[in-house]
Amino acid sequence: MKKALEFEIHHRLDGALARTGTITTPHGLIETPAFIPVGTKATLKALTPEQLRAAGAQAVLVNAYHLYLRPGHELIDRAGGVHEFMHWDGPTFSDSGGFQVMSLGVGFKKVVDMEGDPDQKTTNKKDKLAWIDNDGVNFKSHLDGSMHRFTPELSMQIQHGVGADITFAFDELTTLFHDYDYQVESLHERTHPWAVRSLAEHKRLNVERSHRPPQALFGVVQGADHEDLRRECARFLGGMDFDGYGLGGALRKSNIGNNVRWMCEELPEDKPRHMLGISEPDDIFDCIENGADTFDCVSPARVGRNGALYTKRGRVNITRSEFKEKLEPFDADCDCYTCQNFTAAYLHHLFKSDELLSNTLATIHNERFIVRLVDDIRASIADNSFFDFKQEFLAGYYSKRESA
Amino acid sequence: MKKALEFEIHHRLDGALARTGTITTPHGLIETPAFIPVGTKATLKALTPEQLRAAGAQAVLVNAYHLYLRPGHELIDRAGGVHEFMHWDGPTFSDSGGFQVMSLGVGFKKVVDMEGDPDQKTTNKKDKLAWIDNDGVNFKSHLDGSMHRFTPELSMQIQHGVGADITFAFDELTTLFHDYDYQVESLHERTHPWAVRSLAEHKRLNVERSHRPPQALFGVVQGADHEDLRRECARFLGGMDFDGYGLGGALRKSNIGNNVRWMCEELPEDKPRHMLGISEPDDIFDCIENGADTFDCVSPARVGRNGALYTKRGRVNITRSEFKEKLEPFDADCDCYTCQNFTAAYLHHLFKSDELLSNTLATIHNERFIVRLVDDIRASIADNSFFDFKQEFLAGYYSKRESA
Repeated sequence: MKKALEFEIHHRLDGALARTGTITTPHGLIETPAFIPVGTKATLKALTPEQLRAAGAQAVLVNAYHLYLRPGHELIDRAGGVHEFMHWDGPTFSDSGGFQVMSLGVGFKKVVDMEGDPDQKTTNKKDKLAWIDNDGVNFKSHLDGSMHRFTPELSMQIQHGVGADITFAFDELTTLFHDYDYQVESLHERTHPWAVRSLAEHKRLNVERSHRPPQALFGVVQGADHEDLRRECARFLGGMDFDGYGLGGALRKSNIGNNVRWMCEELPEDKPRHMLGISEPDDIFDCIENGADTFDCVSPARVGRNGALYTKRGRVNITRSEFKEKLEPFDADCDCYTCQNFTAAYLHHLFKSDELLSNTLATIHNERFIVRLVDDIRASIADNSFFDFKQEFLAGYYSKRESA
Repeated sequence: MKKALEFEIHHRLDGALARTGTITTPHGLIETPAFIPVGTKATLKALTPEQLRAAGAQAVLVNAYHLYLRPGHELIDRAGGVHEFMHWDGPTFSDSGGFQVMSLGVGFKKVVDMEGDPDQKTTNKKDKLAWIDNDGVNFKSHLDGSMHRFTPELSMQIQHGVGADITFAFDELTTLFHDYDYQVESLHERTHPWAVRSLAEHKRLNVERSHRPPQALFGVVQGADHEDLRRECARFLGGMDFDGYGLGGALRKSNIGNNVRWMCEELPEDKPRHMLGISEPDDIFDCIENGADTFDCVSPARVGRNGALYTKRGRVNITRSEFKEKLEPFDADCDCYTCQNFTAAYLHHLFKSDELLSNTLATIHNERFIVRLVDDIRASIADNSFFDFKQEFLAGYYSKRESA
């Protein structure tokens, strides 16, 4: 069988865990470190795949939970997989759905119901949308309230139907509000056994579906903000036959670099590592410095649609009156389609007029900004200028924060 | 001074007023007959200019009223004109604002207040948004309720600030509810004198602004549904030094071909004629058959954003369940970007999920459909197969209507 994924390391940064490399998938290459834009429902919102490619994106991450509910992974499978379905011919990732299913408890201000849950006291029975047990998760669809159940096996079946090149094992998302005992139980009773079950089902499916390009599976390291648990989980999963690793779960922003380092020091060095849900520049530098190769986030597109555009001096809202008559590019140094062809005044006009093209142009700029930042970080690793570049970039980007 | 517009006629259809030709503007050519998509606020909603060009659009029509209110024509002028502002390098049209200002009375279910107005009895003082006199129109902004006044001179100043290649004289929009006496008064007291004033101001501005590409001015023929008034107005304006003519105002759909014929029989044959606000296939055939060269409409984009897509068998809504699992192009014969690269099931998914890309893909399909239809009509005039093509196309397009 053709290999699902190969990873070659090109450069290692002196004095840190950062490295550059190339991930090879059946749908092409990803030069790492790389930022992976998120197309949750098999579409990157206001962009065509060609526009996303022109912004420099190497791959797209889609969402198993959303695609399971609509249009259904069986349909995407019959379409020939998500590449065919969404007309994106490059590499793709799909997450396991674990985050979405369990954040029905957390992210939607609801509470996950389970024994030992320290949030138990705030549980409101009628608000509950997800119920976890050691075999899987029952949850209510956010679309129509219908009941569903995810298990590691179903998550893998969905992700094989979707057909992304890189998939993730089904894990339990804990929060920082869960106590240490709960974090231990979560690892031992669910995340670890679920990783074993995900891997077994994944291998079975890769054989059963040998008419399709082989898919890769990343195990997801949990452990919240605890060094011993992060290291234990990374060692446990690192001993298994995964193609790479996801770095997931809750942690304090100030501790993100340490968390990534704890995991990457334990993980096999020759496999790629994907940090889930990261896009702030300071986080990006910290994660790469400590061994992360790829990361994804919806944020550049989401804040862009609200008019918040990235600059080297931080995010700025284009609806501010200073841009009303600025007949120059929003960022004269930016090589994106938007800044190359439109003025700040035109962008301001589109946002003030609630015009749809505002979403497209702002998303292109923001995705390009983050993709290019990571491209520049990659180059700085290759020529060992990473620390200088990090200091210079972050001093400019957060200059307002520091001077405030 | 360089000519603002040239028009060359290539073919005349036997037995009708239809013709093919080429309009030459400072920003390029328009092969006629041609459908001109509408980018009201200097943007075609969900499309970039490149996407609109790829759909086959030769020119874009923008709106003086909207651009006057926001971002302001002075700003567009300082940007170098609307071509530069919106990044569209092809020919552009701008309408005079007359329709928008006066439809604040009609289109928004409000009533225009004037002596002799047959709608006077329904006037509700607090609903009034526009007041017409023989010198111009006072109106309230639909954005903030602020008061403004348009005159023929200001309309031309706005349109020269906007800088479209083809502009329209400021005229009075009447409705079919106005009686004959009112229609006569409107022509003699307002539309005719306003045409004279528009032309004088336009000529002055073309001289004063000789640093800019010269702009063309089309006089707008009114007269509602009355043959004698249509012919009188066309003769009056036809004797003036306009570069072409707009066919405007209210008429019954069943009488559209006659109206266009009455006007075109009186207008000078060597100048182009633009029918304002037309995009239904039967209307398109009738207008072209009777001498219209170009026409514009917001409808293909607007109905597309609501999921109604054109086919040779009429418009069909993509949200219908029959498309949920249709893993083929929406229209296998269509050469648009959407049908070439995505399935009907994917479009259905985007609409069901309220995804922004739905607007882009549906607009591309619909604009391409109408542009291509008019391209085909142009070819059918050149080889004298127009009547056969008309019969065949309309029989298919309205087959449900006929069999119902």
